[in-house]
Amino acid sequence: MKKDLGVMTAVFPMPVLMIGTYDENGKVDVMNAAWGQICDEDKIFLSIDEGHKTYANFKVSKAFTVALADKAHVAVADYFGIASGNRTADKFERTGCRAVKSDKVNAPIIEEFPLVMECELLEFVKTDHVSGVVGKIVNVKAEESALDESGKVDPKKLNALCFDTFQHGYYAIGEQVAKAWNAGAGLMKKE
Amino acid sequence: MKKDLGVMTAVFPMPVLMIGTYDENGKVDVMNAAWGQICDEDKIFLSIDEGHKTYANFKVSKAFTVALADKAHVAVADYFGIASGNRTADKFERTGCRAVKSDKVNAPIIEEFPLVMECELLEFVKTDHVSGVVGKIVNVKAEESALDESGKVDPKKLNALCFDTFQHGYYAIGEQVAKAWNAGAGLMKKE
Repeated sequence: MKKDLGVMTAVFPMPVLMIGTYDENGKVDVMNAAWGQICDEDKIFLSIDEGHKTYANFKVSKAFTVALADKAHVAVADYFGIASGNRTADKFERTGCRAVKSDKVNAPIIEEFPLVMECELLEFVKTDHVSGVVGKIVNVKAEESALDESGKVDPKKLNALCFDTFQHGYYAIGEQVAKAWNAGAGLMKKE
Repeated sequence: MKKDLGVMTAVFPMPVLMIGTYDENGKVDVMNAAWGQICDEDKIFLSIDEGHKTYANFKVSKAFTVALADKAHVAVADYFGIASGNRTADKFERTGCRAVKSDKVNAPIIEEFPLVMECELLEFVKTDHVSGVVGKIVNVKAEESALDESGKVDPKKLNALCFDTFQHGYYAIGEQVAKAWNAGAGLMKKE
């Protein structure tokens, strides 16, 4: 029996995305964004409003990185979500994280996070109901420790965080339940 | 040391969203979509292209539901992703799932899934790089079994699936690592 809960942001799980940008002085900023998702095979859409330092940086640098926060760095990842680059001049510095410039785009890569998408800004999207940016994923980098023997990213080794907006918790990933295109194959037979 | 992996849809985790719609004859269709995310406090954005039966249904019914697929129904959820409503007339029927009409919007609620967002179609978004729809979340319904004592959705009881596009696996959620606004509080002190 289902119960009415009213209006809420009930997508679960959400990723814990670390958006890395340079400001007009080449200063590193990182923000924590859950409202981002792939929107095409080589593109990512981020719902970020104009008030953010990151948004201003998009206009200047025309590029950004999107890293996946992992278990080992949950405190830093959470801090990047609660501190403001507009109010805290040393927001990034006080984390002790190390940033290097991407060799693919004009944006910083935060070394502590295990996987990063290097993105070129394609478009600012502003419609009646959507505000955000689209980035073209020109390359993905990941720590060798997050890869399996075949060189593919292994979610179990990645230790990326899952976010929930019901209780505002960060979660680890659990066991693999099934493989896609395999679990539902039985129902396909008659097609 | 990070390794270059090329272009890939590296957002992780992705949700396993079950998009429920009625076609022009009031027939139920459900599709599995990973490329969806909250885009505002009461809105969801889905990147779905025009080729899908679901997209045609959006135009007719002007509403949809978005349910979270859970562990117990991984086979059905996967099937909704591999079968096509355009090619398989009895796509929904052959799953044995039960659908009831939402009391809030003109879209079906699939009883088997533990949580559902009832959405009114707000806008078709078509820009240079984005194609999809925005829905207004008018209500969320969840099974009592997915709620904690205080009546909030409990991710550990929800058993919602996480999807990965690295290995195309469905995963269960693991333990809670930390609470948001708490994990990073130490770094805020000096602000």
